[in-house]
Amino acid sequence: MRCEVVAIGTELLLGQITDTNSSWIGEQLALAGIDSLYQIKVGDNFDRMVECIRHSLERADAVITCGGLGPTQDDITREAIAEVMGVPLVRHPEIGDRIRKMFESRGRTMPENNLRQADVPEGASTIPQQPGTAPGLICPVGEKVIYAVPGVPHEMETMMQGTILPDLQRRSGFTGIIKSRVLKTWGHSESGLAELLGDRINILDAAGNPTIAFQASGIEGIKVRVTAKSDTQAGALALIAAEEDEVRKILGTYIFATDDESMESVVLDELRRKGLTLAVAEVTSGGLIGTRLSAIDASGEVFRGSIIPVAGSVRQSLLDVPPDEIGTAAAASKLANAVRIVFGADIGISTTGLHDVSTRSELPPGTTFLGISTPNSTDVEQVRLPGDRERIRQYSVISLLNYLRLKLQDMD
Amino acid sequence: MRCEVVAIGTELLLGQITDTNSSWIGEQLALAGIDSLYQIKVGDNFDRMVECIRHSLERADAVITCGGLGPTQDDITREAIAEVMGVPLVRHPEIGDRIRKMFESRGRTMPENNLRQADVPEGASTIPQQPGTAPGLICPVGEKVIYAVPGVPHEMETMMQGTILPDLQRRSGFTGIIKSRVLKTWGHSESGLAELLGDRINILDAAGNPTIAFQASGIEGIKVRVTAKSDTQAGALALIAAEEDEVRKILGTYIFATDDESMESVVLDELRRKGLTLAVAEVTSGGLIGTRLSAIDASGEVFRGSIIPVAGSVRQSLLDVPPDEIGTAAAASKLANAVRIVFGADIGISTTGLHDVSTRSELPPGTTFLGISTPNSTDVEQVRLPGDRERIRQYSVISLLNYLRLKLQDMD
Repeated sequence: MRCEVVAIGTELLLGQITDTNSSWIGEQLALAGIDSLYQIKVGDNFDRMVECIRHSLERADAVITCGGLGPTQDDITREAIAEVMGVPLVRHPEIGDRIRKMFESRGRTMPENNLRQADVPEGASTIPQQPGTAPGLICPVGEKVIYAVPGVPHEMETMMQGTILPDLQRRSGFTGIIKSRVLKTWGHSESGLAELLGDRINILDAAGNPTIAFQASGIEGIKVRVTAKSDTQAGALALIAAEEDEVRKILGTYIFATDDESMESVVLDELRRKGLTLAVAEVTSGGLIGTRLSAIDASGEVFRGSIIPVAGSVRQSLLDVPPDEIGTAAAASKLANAVRIVFGADIGISTTGLHDVSTRSELPPGTTFLGISTPNSTDVEQVRLPGDRERIRQYSVISLLNYLRLKLQDMD
Repeated sequence: MRCEVVAIGTELLLGQITDTNSSWIGEQLALAGIDSLYQIKVGDNFDRMVECIRHSLERADAVITCGGLGPTQDDITREAIAEVMGVPLVRHPEIGDRIRKMFESRGRTMPENNLRQADVPEGASTIPQQPGTAPGLICPVGEKVIYAVPGVPHEMETMMQGTILPDLQRRSGFTGIIKSRVLKTWGHSESGLAELLGDRINILDAAGNPTIAFQASGIEGIKVRVTAKSDTQAGALALIAAEEDEVRKILGTYIFATDDESMESVVLDELRRKGLTLAVAEVTSGGLIGTRLSAIDASGEVFRGSIIPVAGSVRQSLLDVPPDEIGTAAAASKLANAVRIVFGADIGISTTGLHDVSTRSELPPGTTFLGISTPNSTDVEQVRLPGDRERIRQYSVISLLNYLRLKLQDMD
């Protein structure tokens, strides 16, 4: 089963918007076992859209067009698909009524232009999920099919998950269920994880179901994705659960989160579970930790706040740390301890390193100190972070949060 | 002159990496007056790469391939282009020597694999700029041309600017120079700016040189790009300077920055010029302002630090602001004033709003208060920010920094 993606919009070609939809669709197709061998961007031009869709449909079993379903004169995906199908557009009054009601429910009057969104190529049907004004389309062309989804990411995603992915799987002859779970890891390389899991992968390769795949995610670590097929959802989930157990036995605490969890959400959950509060003094990370923690809903229950003490005199006056004491293990220790006490938290954490001082050091570039202070102890981990200034900042965040995660586990 | 972009790499199709290179190239091509009507992603598969490059070369005058020039067995762009050209690959020993020396200068031995990067299709030449181990290629095909650049963004960008864009302009028959300047604006919609500049755009449209274009950049405002052609660089720059004067007369203080400047870099420069220091208390923005300021080189000269006082008792103990006083104009005022004094800065700024409290309010959703405190005055601006929680956080940053920028201008 092969499915191409045609992203439509002149603004994509001009680089005004980066086409992230195709990437997301590509990931979902791969996960569903469907090959996506080509992905194309084309502007809002009728002839070129028709050429692209036709060419993709020759090579593949299915085409997903993304964008061009809006109400304006630029939005001509409906027309282009009708041309490829060799059929006229038919206006569906019930779609128009639905769009009109959407406007009315927001206290607005529907512009007449929006009725264009009620045009459907003859023989095509609409996708049941419709989060916005643009209906998605299912357009059969002989044994093949064109799906049209809007360019608004959440509308596209809803239609992909609700209709297109299951429909593609059905068409591929697979009548069961495919499920997957992502285990997020930190602290080991992709090749290192592959080596640790080598025996397990050999066993799985022989059986073919479930499967394991790796995905490097830069400063967020390496993802291990377990995918299973079964006749039923319960069956697929059982296969995944069993395999997750095996992988967890091998990778242990390298795994920090599952699926949509993040390092910060996991740490906040663990603090909440233990009834502990947190304060942060971030020199190297310069606000990134506070930004990520405060972005999580209800984080204020455990996160008491963060300080970015750039000026030495601020460290002195607020945290009682000497102004010139910075970028060392002792500084990380004092900062973590001070911020814990000053913010009235149970745990204080800190980042500081060579990055923060202009003086020469015998330590290797990127050396950073991560501090954790509790009422009973203060610990400092020395790490060497790769890359330029911005990457060191970013890496210091996940390194410190992971250090805290492991520390919290030890408290059990 | 038409130029297609073929982005090569299975990881792009699988959504493991988002193809930002094509967007960047598309923007540069548009700026140089070259049409890019299709952009394609294809995996590391010889036959499909050949098909894509051939098809693009039929439709366009030039093709830029991006990726697949590395040393591993996956990297087969050289082979695919040689196939399209109908020529063999020839190994260039001098390229091999250059790559070997790159490794030696880093104290490493070159793996023999890297010699594959010294293979060049017969009749092709290499791009003079070579920031990494992969040489870029210029491959003539009759009157047309294929350029091959690596997928590493900064290597690709160096080759585009140093060789490919000038070469494409020469091929398009244009022998002069094209230059552009971006004027970044905040505080007005795209249609509003277009209306203000309407007369100016009519005049420019009639003359055709220079030109003005708009580019919406989400939470960073709207960019106005002035582009001019001339026989000489000095001529192009003079045209731009004259047009920039005209645009500035009309848009005035809506323009906050030029080209690579950002809102935060402009604010920091202005503070430095005035010899003033800054401290931040960020509730709504939750660390984003500190993160952006601390990311700028040498910001520590004027930026004394930031605090994210999540817990009410932290606001009380550190800033002497009552714990339950939050999310109001009075709170923004007190926070800005307190952080200025506590951090020993000349100016204190703050964000707080409905976003930060769970109590009901008669104010419209998204209402946010931006505080600025100096030794002489404390000002609060009430704004209504659109979108969800994360967008409100983001908008509060640029809104406050812009408010500070205007305030600093008034101090002259």
